[in-house]
Amino acid sequence: MNDELLAKTNRMNLLFDFYELLLTEKQRTFLSYYVHDDYSLGEIAENVGISRQAVYEHIKRAESMLQEYEAKLGLLQKFEQRQKLMRELDEVIVSLDDDYQTKVRLLIEQIERID
Amino acid sequence: MNDELLAKTNRMNLLFDFYELLLTEKQRTFLSYYVHDDYSLGEIAENVGISRQAVYEHIKRAESMLQEYEAKLGLLQKFEQRQKLMRELDEVIVSLDDDYQTKVRLLIEQIERID
Repeated sequence: MNDELLAKTNRMNLLFDFYELLLTEKQRTFLSYYVHDDYSLGEIAENVGISRQAVYEHIKRAESMLQEYEAKLGLLQKFEQRQKLMRELDEVIVSLDDDYQTKVRLLIEQIERID
Repeated sequence: MNDELLAKTNRMNLLFDFYELLLTEKQRTFLSYYVHDDYSLGEIAENVGISRQAVYEHIKRAESMLQEYEAKLGLLQKFEQRQKLMRELDEVIVSLDDDYQTKVRLLIEQIERID
């Protein structure tokens, strides 16, 4: 199996931050080694004393759980939407328009609807 | 057992809204009858054809899961914090202070830190 078959992406890093407390301790540990500490499957297997295949299975399962939680709760998506709106809010304030009050209010409503 | 031993509160309603998709189908169904539709344990037992004790156990377990999710993810708490800050943001905008820009920026930072 190839390390690249498991997504060691920024997205997986973020999903791990949001949902790690919902994972089992084993899933959390292995995924942390793999995604946060950037160890390879082989290095983890060696450190923990199990087969590379077993490490792969744990991580694959953990990543699958993270995707499932995101599909159900959408925390990352909501976070990104909120961040985008906050950036727009910054822009509005900087320009100091005559219409600034209306625009800021509209943004606030959108932020509230995220939840 | 007494219906009042299970918290049929507004808080439980909110927790249910946030985490219902993480519950099992049975937990979701029973808790929805009890908290959303306001049925009594007896009425649910009658409708579903199981004992009142069994209904009680399902709901107690479901509520316990909701509390556990909140302890881990804190979605309700974060939501309430966000709402509070949004209200303060409203106040700031309405007053149209000379310092409004600094105040609004400070609030935005606090909102971002919630996640």
